[in-house]
Amino acid sequence: MQVLDRVAVWRKALDAERAAGRVVGIVPTMGALHDGHASLIERAAGECDVVGVTVFVNPLQFAGGEDFDAYPRVLEHDEAVAAAHGAAYLFAPPVEEMYPRPVETVVSVPSLSARWDGEARPGHFDGVGTVVTKLFAQAGACRAYFGEKDYQQLCIVRRLVADLDLPTEIVGCPTVRDPDGLAMSSRNAYLAPEERRVAPLLFRSLQTGAAVLAGGGSPEECRQAMHALLATEPRFSLIYAEPVDPDTLDPLAAALPTGGSARLLAAARLGRARLIDNLGVTR
Amino acid sequence: MQVLDRVAVWRKALDAERAAGRVVGIVPTMGALHDGHASLIERAAGECDVVGVTVFVNPLQFAGGEDFDAYPRVLEHDEAVAAAHGAAYLFAPPVEEMYPRPVETVVSVPSLSARWDGEARPGHFDGVGTVVTKLFAQAGACRAYFGEKDYQQLCIVRRLVADLDLPTEIVGCPTVRDPDGLAMSSRNAYLAPEERRVAPLLFRSLQTGAAVLAGGGSPEECRQAMHALLATEPRFSLIYAEPVDPDTLDPLAAALPTGGSARLLAAARLGRARLIDNLGVTR
Repeated sequence: MQVLDRVAVWRKALDAERAAGRVVGIVPTMGALHDGHASLIERAAGECDVVGVTVFVNPLQFAGGEDFDAYPRVLEHDEAVAAAHGAAYLFAPPVEEMYPRPVETVVSVPSLSARWDGEARPGHFDGVGTVVTKLFAQAGACRAYFGEKDYQQLCIVRRLVADLDLPTEIVGCPTVRDPDGLAMSSRNAYLAPEERRVAPLLFRSLQTGAAVLAGGGSPEECRQAMHALLATEPRFSLIYAEPVDPDTLDPLAAALPTGGSARLLAAARLGRARLIDNLGVTR
Repeated sequence: MQVLDRVAVWRKALDAERAAGRVVGIVPTMGALHDGHASLIERAAGECDVVGVTVFVNPLQFAGGEDFDAYPRVLEHDEAVAAAHGAAYLFAPPVEEMYPRPVETVVSVPSLSARWDGEARPGHFDGVGTVVTKLFAQAGACRAYFGEKDYQQLCIVRRLVADLDLPTEIVGCPTVRDPDGLAMSSRNAYLAPEERRVAPLLFRSLQTGAAVLAGGGSPEECRQAMHALLATEPRFSLIYAEPVDPDTLDPLAAALPTGGSARLLAAARLGRARLIDNLGVTR
């Protein structure tokens, strides 16, 4: 596996792969690779001829007071994980290579960005949209693999790719979970042992809400069921738990018709960690 | 010359040109091609192996109450001009091909967009940034030729290409003028004969302001000289006439040092037309 840190070298390498007729897959990450990332890399390696993992902790997507400085940076570990799961390249540019001058350009999808995680994290999704557009422009035509774990992010990335006709095919992949149901996340490392023990309640609340909707319950009944379950654990501080339209992310307006689909989104603070999770449901 | 109206066909054609080793140049326009556009096409044809002209009157960059409906659409004329000056392709997508669904994504450069033309035309440069990013994504790696006539637009396009690492090389080309100095513009067609006669005063005011700066005069002396000359013609309604930094577009703060450069920007209404022009000056 080649480890690169210069945009020009990375671009040239992928151009050469395409020129040789190979399909390129990329897995954009912020590093601290866990089994969720590993599953994306393996999926990409199974579907593409050559896979590049990008590792970049993007300052644009952290609001003031967030954990940009504390975010784990473990490049040697990331190299080992990427290589073990089939990546041919790891591209890990320093901040000054990605942003050699202050970034004045913003790529945003306001209708999908202002709500849910965007409400608590002003500017977060504009930072995501901008860096993802830049990573795609550097990589050129490719498939790009994203986890469904960050569902709102996935919706925004799909939308900007469609709106801007970027030559990128977005592949959304199922969330990978620990055996007790907790969605894998680099931020789980912030949990103290007793917090880690109760953390799966977030996913169980989503399963409970999904059962309500699947049984014909109303959005309000679904919401109440999720809120009630999370309220049983005082360590959790709920941010939101809501059934939404899977494309527009609008709050669900009515019970699902037979065959109808929704997405349940939830976010909560647990100790130092801000956890998010989501679950699809079809009636 | 091939005339195309489907994004997928246009993208495939340029991909094939590049695969054959040819350098692609594009000239993005809103049609109604005049000698200014012709000079861009000729320059591109001289520097690239194959040139495509895009013709698209972009609704995103017209504010409410502007001349979107009235803007001239003369595709047969445009085809003749593009072919005569060396274009191999003319890509003229209908609005529903460019925007098959409402566009939710915005590509903006707020620091360069809020002022000058952006102040009078809210959303205009966001519409430009979005469509240009989309046109570049469709075209793939290429050189893109823009006139200096729309100087603020050129600065914004250069900035977003640099910030997003788009594989596009922006080439700015000198403004083409009628013999009496009026900058060529599709909107000159809105001028009544007596308005057309006095229209070159806008350029003469820029020349006057440039002489002040070149002689060591202050920004305020430069501004006053431009305003005074334009005030001699009551048909003109001045919007702005200002010396600015050529990169940031900030108002010039002090007289130019020897070797220093500035750009003079001016906009004025004349009858139904909103005219803009600009001029570079180095002391």
